[in-house]
Amino acid sequence: MPEINPQRLMNDLRHLRTIGQYGTGVIRPAFSTKDMEARQWLLDRMSAAGLKTFMDGVGNVFGRSPNPGRGILIGSHTDTQPQGGWLDGSLGVLYGLEIIRALAEDRRTVHFAVDMASWSDEEGTYMSMLGSRSFCDMLTRDDMERAQNHLTAQPLSAALEQAGLTGMPTTTMDPERYVAYLEAHVEQGPHLEAQGNHLGVVTAIVGIRTFRLTFKGQQNHAGTTPMEYRKDAGIALIELVHDINREFTTLAGPRTVWTIGYVHLEPGSPSVVPGRAEMLLQFRDTDDKILDALESKTIRIVEEAHKKGPVDIDLAAVPPQCETAGMDETVQVCLAAAAETHAPGRWIRMPSGAGHDAQILAQRLPAGMLFVPSIGGISHDIAEDTAEEDIVRGCRALATATETLLRHPNPV
Amino acid sequence: MPEINPQRLMNDLRHLRTIGQYGTGVIRPAFSTKDMEARQWLLDRMSAAGLKTFMDGVGNVFGRSPNPGRGILIGSHTDTQPQGGWLDGSLGVLYGLEIIRALAEDRRTVHFAVDMASWSDEEGTYMSMLGSRSFCDMLTRDDMERAQNHLTAQPLSAALEQAGLTGMPTTTMDPERYVAYLEAHVEQGPHLEAQGNHLGVVTAIVGIRTFRLTFKGQQNHAGTTPMEYRKDAGIALIELVHDINREFTTLAGPRTVWTIGYVHLEPGSPSVVPGRAEMLLQFRDTDDKILDALESKTIRIVEEAHKKGPVDIDLAAVPPQCETAGMDETVQVCLAAAAETHAPGRWIRMPSGAGHDAQILAQRLPAGMLFVPSIGGISHDIAEDTAEEDIVRGCRALATATETLLRHPNPV
Repeated sequence: MPEINPQRLMNDLRHLRTIGQYGTGVIRPAFSTKDMEARQWLLDRMSAAGLKTFMDGVGNVFGRSPNPGRGILIGSHTDTQPQGGWLDGSLGVLYGLEIIRALAEDRRTVHFAVDMASWSDEEGTYMSMLGSRSFCDMLTRDDMERAQNHLTAQPLSAALEQAGLTGMPTTTMDPERYVAYLEAHVEQGPHLEAQGNHLGVVTAIVGIRTFRLTFKGQQNHAGTTPMEYRKDAGIALIELVHDINREFTTLAGPRTVWTIGYVHLEPGSPSVVPGRAEMLLQFRDTDDKILDALESKTIRIVEEAHKKGPVDIDLAAVPPQCETAGMDETVQVCLAAAAETHAPGRWIRMPSGAGHDAQILAQRLPAGMLFVPSIGGISHDIAEDTAEEDIVRGCRALATATETLLRHPNPV
Repeated sequence: MPEINPQRLMNDLRHLRTIGQYGTGVIRPAFSTKDMEARQWLLDRMSAAGLKTFMDGVGNVFGRSPNPGRGILIGSHTDTQPQGGWLDGSLGVLYGLEIIRALAEDRRTVHFAVDMASWSDEEGTYMSMLGSRSFCDMLTRDDMERAQNHLTAQPLSAALEQAGLTGMPTTTMDPERYVAYLEAHVEQGPHLEAQGNHLGVVTAIVGIRTFRLTFKGQQNHAGTTPMEYRKDAGIALIELVHDINREFTTLAGPRTVWTIGYVHLEPGSPSVVPGRAEMLLQFRDTDDKILDALESKTIRIVEEAHKKGPVDIDLAAVPPQCETAGMDETVQVCLAAAAETHAPGRWIRMPSGAGHDAQILAQRLPAGMLFVPSIGGISHDIAEDTAEEDIVRGCRALATATETLLRHPNPV
C-alpha cells in the first residue's frame, strides 16, 4: 500500500489557505486575482512532483503523469464561494497531488499513471462546473457567451480576458487514457459526524435546478403612494416565496432541499416602493420525479401570481441545470473496500446533496466520490473545517482505492 | 402682484436636470460629484440674482437677500434619490430663486427680504433632512458621527471630506429674521391629479418611523444542509415580512403606508443558505396613535419570531425619526388664498405623505407647503413629471403667498 505523507499534505493544504485567506476561510472566487495566484502555486507544486503541467483556456489546471498506459484521473477545484471554507475543493485537489507523490515514491507503484486536475469555477461564479464541463466537451459557444457573474453580471469572456486566458487552448478528455475518475470532498453536511462515521462512499449526486425570478412593478414614493395604488415588486417577491415555502414542504422528499440565496430589490432605498425585484430559487434532489414536481409547482405559483397582479413576474431557468448522476458501481466497490480498511465499520454509503465536478465526469468515465466529515456540518462558510485525522484518513483511503483500481482494473 | 418669468423658471429647471441626468430623471444623491456640481451651479445662479451666497459645512446652499427687515425663507433640496425625478426638490428651490428675481424686478416689492436655501441630503442618503436639521440646530455630534450611507455604509464624515466640506462652518437660523418658511413641492402622489385639482395646501406632514431588522442565522451549503438543520436568515426575513403585511393591514388608517424598500441577504449566492439578512421597514401616518400601534406590533412580531427561532432577530430604530408636523394656520390661510386666486375651485387642503424639510423648519418657524400635481402620481422614479402649466401656476401661487405674508405679516 502506498504511504502518503500526512505532514506534506497538511502543509500544502495550509499553504493554499493563505492565498486569499479570510479569517479561517478563503475568498478565491473563480478568475479573481487570488484564484489565479492559487492556480499558479498549484502548477509549481505539481511540476515539482514530476507532472507535466498546464493551465487551459478556461482556467483548468492539469497535471499529466509521464507514465504511459491507462490511468486514474483525480480532481476537484481550488476556486471558492464568495466566502468559502478552506477545504472545499482544495482537499480533493491536494489529495490527488499527495497520492501521485506517494505512488511515485513506492517502487511497486512508481509506474502507475495518475493524472490530476483542478477544474475551474466549480462554485459557479460564472457557470457551475465550467472547467469540468469544458473538459468533457459539453459546452457550446452559446453557453460560453451567455455565462456571466451572477452577482456583478460581468461576462465570462471579460473575466477570462482579465485572467489572461483569452486565446489559450482548451483541453478535452481522451477517454482511452482513464480507468476511472475519483474525487474526494468534505461532506459539507451533518450526516457523517452525527452518526460517528469517518468516511462516506457516494452513491449518487443530486440534480440541481436553478431559476431566476424577475418582478416588474412600479417604482414610486414610499410616503405618497397609497397602499392600494402600489405595484410593489418587493412585496410580490416576498409573498411568492412564502407560497413556495408552503407548497414545497408538501412535495419534498426526505432529502429535498430548496434555497433562496439571492434577493435584490431596486432601487433599494427605504423611502422608495421597489419597482423591480429579482431572486434565485434553487432546489435539489437525487429523485428526478421530485425535481419535476417542484418545477411544475414553481411554474404554477408564478403563473397564478402573475395573473393576479399587480406585478409582472418572469421565471427563467438558469442554465446549465445539473442532472442527477449515479456513481459507478465498480468504483463504489473499490472505495467501499478502502473505507473498510481505513475506518472499519465507521463508514457509510450516501448520496451527495452538493453538486460536484464528478457528476460531469460521470457522464464520460466511471466515476466515484469519497466524503470526509465536516465539523458541525458547516460548509460554504469560513467556519467550515474537518478534523486533521479525518483529512489524513480520507487521503489514505483514496490512495488505497486508486491503487486497487490500477492494479485490478476490473475488480468485481 | 409680482410677475414671475415662466421661461426663465423652466430654463433653470431644465438646466438643473442636465446635471446627473439619467433618462428623464436624475442621479444626484447627497454629496456625490453631481450633487456638488448642482450646488455650485445654483450658487452661481443665486449670485447672479443679487443674493449673498455660501455653502455651509453640511452642504446647505444659502442665499441671503441684501434687504434688511423680517423676511421669508423659501427652501427645498437639490439632492435626489438613487434614481430620482427631475422636479423632486429642484422645483421648490428654483421657485424660490424665481420669486426672488420677480420681487426684485417689481418696484413695489424690490425692498422685500426673501432668503432661499437648498438643504442638503433631504433624501436621507446619509441622514434624512440633514441640512435643515443642522440649520435648526437639532443635531448632536453623536448624530453626525453615527450617520452613514444606508447602502454603502460610508460614514457621513467621509462623504463631507470627499465633498471638500470638512472644517467649513455650519449655519444656524436667526428666528428673528423670518416671518415664515415656505416650501413648494411636487405632490408625489395621485390625489391632486385624480380629482382634477391643480394645487394642494398642506395641512400636516406625516411622521416617519424607520427600523433596521437584522437576522443572524448560520451560513451553510445549500445542497448538503437538510431543511430541518437550517438557520436560514433569508427565510426568517421573508416570513416576518409576510406577518407584518398581514398584521399592519388590520391596524392601518386610510392613509397609513408601510414599505420594505431594502433587503439584503448574505452572502447572496444561489448555493449558500443565507447566514445574515437585513431589511429596512418604514411606516408613515399623520396620526401618532397609529404610528405607535404599528411600532408596538412590530416589536411584538420580532420578539415572537426571535423567541421561536432558529434565527436571531434584532430590531433597531434608524435615527432620526421624523415627528408628525402640523403646518402653521396663518400660513395655510395665505397659501389657500393664493391657491384660490390662481386655481379657482381647483385646489384642496391635504396632508403630505412624504417627509419634507418643512417638517423640521416647522419646529422653529411658522411653516407652510404648497403642492403641484404629479402626473400619474409617480415619484421617486425617473418617470416623475408635472405638466408645465402646473409648474408655472405653482410658482405664481407661491409668489402671491410670499407677497401677502410680507405685506401683511399677520393677515388673519
